Amino acid sequence: MSSSRDIAKKSIMYHKRLKGTILLGQKSRRLSIKEIQMIYTPGVAAVSKEVFDHPEKKFVLTSKRNNVAIVTDGTRILGLGNIGPYAAMPVMEGKAMLYKQYARITAFPICLSTTDKKKIIETIIAIEPSFGAINLEDIESPKVLDISQELQKKIPVPVFHDDRHGTSVVALAALLNALKLVKKQLESVKIIVAGAGSAGVGITEILVFAGCKNVIVSDSTGAIYKGRRKNMNQYKNEIAAHTNPKREKGSLEDVIKNADVFIGVSGISNLITKDTVKKMKKDAIVFALTNPEPEIDPVIAKKAGARIVATGSYQFHNRVNNALVFPYIMRAILDHGISKIETEILYAVAVAISNTIPKKQLRYDNIISNVGDLRLQQNISRALKKFYKK
Amino acid sequence: MSSSRDIAKKSIMYHKRLKGTILLGQKSRRLSIKEIQMIYTPGVAAVSKEVFDHPEKKFVLTSKRNNVAIVTDGTRILGLGNIGPYAAMPVMEGKAMLYKQYARITAFPICLSTTDKKKIIETIIAIEPSFGAINLEDIESPKVLDISQELQKKIPVPVFHDDRHGTSVVALAALLNALKLVKKQLESVKIIVAGAGSAGVGITEILVFAGCKNVIVSDSTGAIYKGRRKNMNQYKNEIAAHTNPKREKGSLEDVIKNADVFIGVSGISNLITKDTVKKMKKDAIVFALTNPEPEIDPVIAKKAGARIVATGSYQFHNRVNNALVFPYIMRAILDHGISKIETEILYAVAVAISNTIPKKQLRYDNIISNVGDLRLQQNISRALKKFYKK
Repeated sequence: MSSSRDIAKKSIMYHKRLKGTILLGQKSRRLSIKEIQMIYTPGVAAVSKEVFDHPEKKFVLTSKRNNVAIVTDGTRILGLGNIGPYAAMPVMEGKAMLYKQYARITAFPICLSTTDKKKIIETIIAIEPSFGAINLEDIESPKVLDISQELQKKIPVPVFHDDRHGTSVVALAALLNALKLVKKQLESVKIIVAGAGSAGVGITEILVFAGCKNVIVSDSTGAIYKGRRKNMNQYKNEIAAHTNPKREKGSLEDVIKNADVFIGVSGISNLITKDTVKKMKKDAIVFALTNPEPEIDPVIAKKAGARIVATGSYQFHNRVNNALVFPYIMRAILDHGISKIETEILYAVAVAISNTIPKKQLRYDNIISNVGDLRLQQNISRALKKFYKK
Repeated sequence: MSSSRDIAKKSIMYHKRLKGTILLGQKSRRLSIKEIQMIYTPGVAAVSKEVFDHPEKKFVLTSKRNNVAIVTDGTRILGLGNIGPYAAMPVMEGKAMLYKQYARITAFPICLSTTDKKKIIETIIAIEPSFGAINLEDIESPKVLDISQELQKKIPVPVFHDDRHGTSVVALAALLNALKLVKKQLESVKIIVAGAGSAGVGITEILVFAGCKNVIVSDSTGAIYKGRRKNMNQYKNEIAAHTNPKREKGSLEDVIKNADVFIGVSGISNLITKDTVKKMKKDAIVFALTNPEPEIDPVIAKKAGARIVATGSYQFHNRVNNALVFPYIMRAILDHGISKIETEILYAVAVAISNTIPKKQLRYDNIISNVGDLRLQQNISRALKKFYKK
């Protein structure tokens, strides 16, 4: 595959040629004057009146339910950190393209000129009528967790937080298959999650929901345990309450001893070394999911004894990337009229994704479907049918 | 042509079939994995970094400059009044389609859940980074005039207020040609503008800028004149200061005596009667621009002696509709990097539109080009070249 530098150069040229990637289309071909009379004055007045008289018709007469706002304040863009709303735009456009390509969703980048929590919440509440769902993207944690919590109480559309929800789903889906391959049980393995930001919180929630008994989350201060005082917040308190049953303390390097699984969502490239991996149990599973540079080079991790290694990048095997999740789950959520993202929904999607790759194709270097797999949508939609709201 | 009722029914069916009219497209065909590596991780990180390092590159590496937010609070939708943001959506979608079809602009409906002036301003400031321009649409006056004024001071992108700017341009363009046909001079005719909302304010501004010496604006209280106390605001004070030199007082029916031109932007269908038209001078020009039902039926106006009659509707001849203006002026404004809408810009566009219809095609029932006329874009862009900002 191409080198990083190559891809970077090509990407810049590609964006320059297209001047950004998104462009509004139209569902019909070029409009005739007769059609313009229907989509604009005078005909459209009747459509508006119909929605006014029967508010529920907004779901069938307008595009609301197919529109998703990808909202960011530019504070935590990929591995680049706080680069602001203008520089965030290419990432949001790319995301919109994937929504379009894989799920026929009209996602629009809303890059905000404010990083103030209250203003972000108010802005999203204000623009909600145009959208069927909100996708929070690359906003710094824990602020974004507060925003998500607050919003879900105040607006009638689902608030999908990809860094938290999407990552947790794809990580669990991949883990379920990896465990099958090494013949270990989710209930009994020791799992280290590196990072207690949005992704770390989401992964911990879904692992606990799925029945993991021994998860330890580690942040820049070290292992999180009940009673820790330093560098805590309400989300880490939640983590402390539901993980680390033996209250193990110390650094990541300490608690990873005898772990079966490492899941890195730390945002720090090369966080761990071959020596870290060597401390893990036999048939170790290493998911180094930080983008664009993972917590450890997959080749090094393998050499150090890891049986299964995955990253979030398209450059390696086992691509455990949100792109496997967000277009499809959003399509299903919109179609089923689901107005709130619950952990049981995410769990159902993770199981559906994990089962999408045929058993006989499962290998150490092939633990999950590829992003374009057409069965993903079908399986995820079917899995969410029982959550259908009307 | 089809009847109103027919169009209404067909419009509703059309929107139901498509579930709203807009859909995000993409500039390239279906993306390959290689392309996904460029528009999303890992390649896109380099693009974001490039914009971060060179902020002016947001104009060439992202779609910002081609994106327009069509912002409404749903308080003044067509002739329907305050029907709220959900029912406003079909109109905004239709507008987005026209932007797309005639100017390849990605316009996105932003229908707001608030009608509070301060909150509307703050929301638009917050979402500005994603857009190359703001189009204020169907927000009640004079609130919208305050919003427009305030915003233009606070954000670096142009704030186009279609009800004010677009209507003024198309009205002047049509009037220039109508006056040619009846051989009267703009400087010497008496013009009555019915309505002192956004459109009335805009039309008055451009008429005064163009050199009209005798404009009288009439609102629900009657003629506006210097010194009037009742039902005034800062915009009507401006009008009073620059129009009605003889300080004529009384109702619309009073001041229209001996007028050469009537321009109706009152929002009231059947505001005037055949008797009103009969009071006007020979070769009277009647523009009844309220949508969807004009101030007077064109057939009645003609019968009463009007030489040239125009409406804003596609159902009659002489369609003096904003759709002749907004896609093309926006394209030119974005391409030329113009960051503020000034009256001289609007005037230049009006002249360009008026000159687009070939002289030999000018007739009483054909005073202006049709909306799809391909020469419009070329002529408007050329006219705005001198305002090029970089």
